[in-house]
Amino acid sequence: MSEFTSNDSPINLWWQRDDLTFRNGRLFLGKSDLAELAEKVGSPAYVIRAPRVVEKLKDLHSAFEQAGLDHRIYYAIKANRSPRLLTYLASQRLCGADVCSPGELLHALSCGFPEKDISFTGTSLGARDIATLAKFDRLRINLDSLSALEQLGQLCPGREIGIRVNPDIGIGYTGNEMLQYSGLEATKFGIYLDRLPEALEIADKYDLKIVRVHFHAGCGYLDRELDQLADVIAASRAFTEGLPDLRELNIGGGLGVPHTQDDAPLNLDRWAEVLANAFRGSDLNIAVEPGDYLIKDAGILLASVTYVEQRKDVEFVGLNAGFNLAMEPAFYGLPCEPVPTLLSTKEVRHYTIVGNVNEALDKWAVNHPLPKPQAGEVIALINAGGYASSMRSDHCLRGEVQEVLLLD
Amino acid sequence: MSEFTSNDSPINLWWQRDDLTFRNGRLFLGKSDLAELAEKVGSPAYVIRAPRVVEKLKDLHSAFEQAGLDHRIYYAIKANRSPRLLTYLASQRLCGADVCSPGELLHALSCGFPEKDISFTGTSLGARDIATLAKFDRLRINLDSLSALEQLGQLCPGREIGIRVNPDIGIGYTGNEMLQYSGLEATKFGIYLDRLPEALEIADKYDLKIVRVHFHAGCGYLDRELDQLADVIAASRAFTEGLPDLRELNIGGGLGVPHTQDDAPLNLDRWAEVLANAFRGSDLNIAVEPGDYLIKDAGILLASVTYVEQRKDVEFVGLNAGFNLAMEPAFYGLPCEPVPTLLSTKEVRHYTIVGNVNEALDKWAVNHPLPKPQAGEVIALINAGGYASSMRSDHCLRGEVQEVLLLD
Repeated sequence: MSEFTSNDSPINLWWQRDDLTFRNGRLFLGKSDLAELAEKVGSPAYVIRAPRVVEKLKDLHSAFEQAGLDHRIYYAIKANRSPRLLTYLASQRLCGADVCSPGELLHALSCGFPEKDISFTGTSLGARDIATLAKFDRLRINLDSLSALEQLGQLCPGREIGIRVNPDIGIGYTGNEMLQYSGLEATKFGIYLDRLPEALEIADKYDLKIVRVHFHAGCGYLDRELDQLADVIAASRAFTEGLPDLRELNIGGGLGVPHTQDDAPLNLDRWAEVLANAFRGSDLNIAVEPGDYLIKDAGILLASVTYVEQRKDVEFVGLNAGFNLAMEPAFYGLPCEPVPTLLSTKEVRHYTIVGNVNEALDKWAVNHPLPKPQAGEVIALINAGGYASSMRSDHCLRGEVQEVLLLD
Repeated sequence: MSEFTSNDSPINLWWQRDDLTFRNGRLFLGKSDLAELAEKVGSPAYVIRAPRVVEKLKDLHSAFEQAGLDHRIYYAIKANRSPRLLTYLASQRLCGADVCSPGELLHALSCGFPEKDISFTGTSLGARDIATLAKFDRLRINLDSLSALEQLGQLCPGREIGIRVNPDIGIGYTGNEMLQYSGLEATKFGIYLDRLPEALEIADKYDLKIVRVHFHAGCGYLDRELDQLADVIAASRAFTEGLPDLRELNIGGGLGVPHTQDDAPLNLDRWAEVLANAFRGSDLNIAVEPGDYLIKDAGILLASVTYVEQRKDVEFVGLNAGFNLAMEPAFYGLPCEPVPTLLSTKEVRHYTIVGNVNEALDKWAVNHPLPKPQAGEVIALINAGGYASSMRSDHCLRGEVQEVLLLD
């Protein structure tokens, strides 16, 4: 695929794959030469290769089918709500949309997703939120609190609903407390088992039919966390027994992608086997809501080098893109690794790569190997497809950014 | 001023002051009843009391004057760039504007600040940035790298400029590495002493006159850090000696406000005394660029309670505002303390207060005392004037928010 192998390349190419690779020393995403693309559209620029998302959706469907499971996939639009991407995905009819706010619901509809293919699971819903949701009678709503059940019950008695529960076991990025969705300490998500009887009473009072149970196991899990996934699913049984109308179990999102050379990718067959062991033979439809898994490594943030300059004993490379365009590296410790778009030289040095926002934490990488760049050269920040543009801010009025959806 | 003193109040009122206080059990900011305001304009809502900013500007001027120092104040608009606020401040003629990007420069101009009253200190400037800056011949530009000096020199030979230097000593929020602007490890900010001779050579080559030296000492400093401020100023002398055209020393921003009951406010007289000890008798004009100090406690984020519900052994209060509207609590550990707008009951309990974004870190406070609230009640998140709206994101499409500037 590439002219460089891990042995003769001047930088580590752990992220390289068929559709993200060097050809004649130039970085390609699908059929697009990224340096040339930045030259034409300007930088910074978010670039998404949509066919990769479709390939991953097909892989997911196929893993489910191999495992013999009825299933549904909802793309979690909070990861990336680009209208271009959403409309493309709606047109492919391989997934529905997972939304978490009334705003996201209206946005998904505006991009072509039919109401019946949208799954809503929000939190801290106010009266105004509930009033909006109540208008959508084909929407698949999962309610995560007794108060939301009570409010929706009053407005829509007799309706089919789902409940979001909290099985009180969490998995995810090891040791990152900020990403803890369930586990020892009580979190804001879902109905805990001790309050399930009250939830059922409220449902009964308003004749709400609980046809779905939803839980979210974690965030960014990979192969090493699959045993824990099995434990979470086992813990969810306490919620699903004794629900006569139950048709669907939604295991949320959380499927991860590698962020560094030390991460091994999620093995979908092993993942599906965990689900099959739990659900084969049941007549439940299994739903999943991947976000990062589908979109993160399909997206790149292109930025241009503003300067290369030594400060004390550190060589700095400045970019024209700051942490406000992709917050995960600064705040979650999840890097968007900087990759050159031109391998024109093999003189590799180690750089601290920084952005153009006046904040000390605005750093893309520290002591990171790069072929010596020049001002104006384009750097690709990989893994910028998920939770980058969707969380972007205009801090320091440095939020201006191009966007390109590539269809090959 | 208030009917509650710290002895008989059901909650801690450390933040209370003349213009933010309870009257008949209702929270007022200036002359505005905040619960009533939220009822009228809706929530969530950013509310700024502009006269407080003006009062603090007057305090700053007066501290400078007492200390016998020629001075200039530039408000750091990155803290809050509301056009309402900026236009109000421009009309008061008590400060200029500190901007850090071409976008902020154009924005400050659009809000009425004259070009000559704008100070620019950016970082990682690209060729496009420099080309924009070069058009503004009355702008006070401080350049923070050799590459920026070289580029501006080529476009504007003979121009008066400032240089941003790095005195290699940092102060600020104790132990918060994310807010480290200078200190042991090399940062991206400013020209270090070992490269000053090269900077002077570049200036000489293009006949640039260095009339200002700028440095940024830290972030959020209070009284306890004033000795360190003196050290930073002392370290800056190595940069200012031997600059024949020097007229102004800009000590940047970083003046802090209390975030918790454990913080004592900055004593402006002591602060000015530190400056006076360093500069009395010199003919330098001393410039300062406060952001948070002027705006942070003048602003509040009003949010409505969506639910009150126990999960495991924790009582949760949900709000209709998430961390995307004020990121400092979640990411910097700088709280926006939740305060009731109605003290209707003295039954105080301890709550975990959370927002409406589907992320585990979306928490405003843990184990926080509040009079038991009801759904629909309005909570004031204090200290939301700085780095809240300016860093806001539309994550989960939960970014919709009202804005009100109060003039009393």
